[in-house]
Amino acid sequence: MPGAGRADRRRHTRRLEILSAAARSFRSRGFAATGMREIAAAADLSPANLYHYFRGKQELLYFCQETSLERMLAAVRAARRARTPAAERLRAVIRAHVDCVLGEMEGAAAHLEVDDLPAPLKRRILVKRDLYERDIRRIVAAGITSGEFVDCDAKLTTQAILGALNWSVRWFRPDGERSPSDVGTAFAAYLVRGLIAAPSASRSNGRKRA
Amino acid sequence: MPGAGRADRRRHTRRLEILSAAARSFRSRGFAATGMREIAAAADLSPANLYHYFRGKQELLYFCQETSLERMLAAVRAARRARTPAAERLRAVIRAHVDCVLGEMEGAAAHLEVDDLPAPLKRRILVKRDLYERDIRRIVAAGITSGEFVDCDAKLTTQAILGALNWSVRWFRPDGERSPSDVGTAFAAYLVRGLIAAPSASRSNGRKRA
Repeated sequence: MPGAGRADRRRHTRRLEILSAAARSFRSRGFAATGMREIAAAADLSPANLYHYFRGKQELLYFCQETSLERMLAAVRAARRARTPAAERLRAVIRAHVDCVLGEMEGAAAHLEVDDLPAPLKRRILVKRDLYERDIRRIVAAGITSGEFVDCDAKLTTQAILGALNWSVRWFRPDGERSPSDVGTAFAAYLVRGLIAAPSASRSNGRKRA
Repeated sequence: MPGAGRADRRRHTRRLEILSAAARSFRSRGFAATGMREIAAAADLSPANLYHYFRGKQELLYFCQETSLERMLAAVRAARRARTPAAERLRAVIRAHVDCVLGEMEGAAAHLEVDDLPAPLKRRILVKRDLYERDIRRIVAAGITSGEFVDCDAKLTTQAILGALNWSVRWFRPDGERSPSDVGTAFAAYLVRGLIAAPSASRSNGRKRA
């Protein structure tokens, strides 16, 4: 939040803390079943005090989606600026995405529940999501153009990548054997390898350069 | 339905037709917003007649999930029996999965809304889903063991594959530029290529064999 005053920054930090508490409740009970009362309890606030930060669950959901998309956009923009091979840039974006949806701000899981937002807020989120998707697609397309990646459909490949990443919130368990970082590293390796021409390329059954 | 009588088979066929009509409504309005009345209209039935086939939306949803999982299980079992390379078997499963969730039985989309089922039905679906996931994981693991695939985490890779496939129902538009078969072919090529050691393997940042 560049240019924001100290009070604004403090409010923003407090909202992030509340979001993190709400996220845990969303994860354990589901978004629909979690009320403002439970969120207040989880965040150690009185309901009245919670309403001072968020006028309702939808405002909180919007803040959640907005915050996680901003983090992801920052990561993909940093990657696009980097002067490294496309494979490396794409792996960085994948790790950041997994970290964002499974990591500290856990219930960024809620970042997928876009249908629960009122139409005007939903539109703003979808615009950002499209920007994010476009930036990833551009990294893929740049790798194809430079010959670093195989010649494939950049749009479909980007959807496959985003699907693998977003779906992780459905099966990931914080108390399971793999950490968010394990998932991020494994997914980055696997999903980028699929863009690099395989040695037995004649078998790989899609359009290809080699 | 081996062994079922003619009347049973006719009923099953009729239920599939109703499901297909319901699927179109689910896709355009969302599952939650679609009522039995709309489903009856879409299937060209009176509401009373519809209730003769499905006592409610949950029974229809269960039938939808059951049917698409059975199709997917049949495909993965056929693939496991085939005496072809793991890559080929996995591509066949991926194409069948995409065909099932995006193809004729379109709104198999609803096959993902497992949380809307009552607990006992949900458990039966989850058991089948686990079997399906396990069968895919075994194809991946067999390819790793034989050296056809890179040495990677078969469980995480399977989740990445399933995520890419299942997420497709979120972005796919039947009136868009790509057919379900385009998606299936592109996804099969990309997701299997990621299991085959890349030539510049030293860069791919994960555990590997080469």
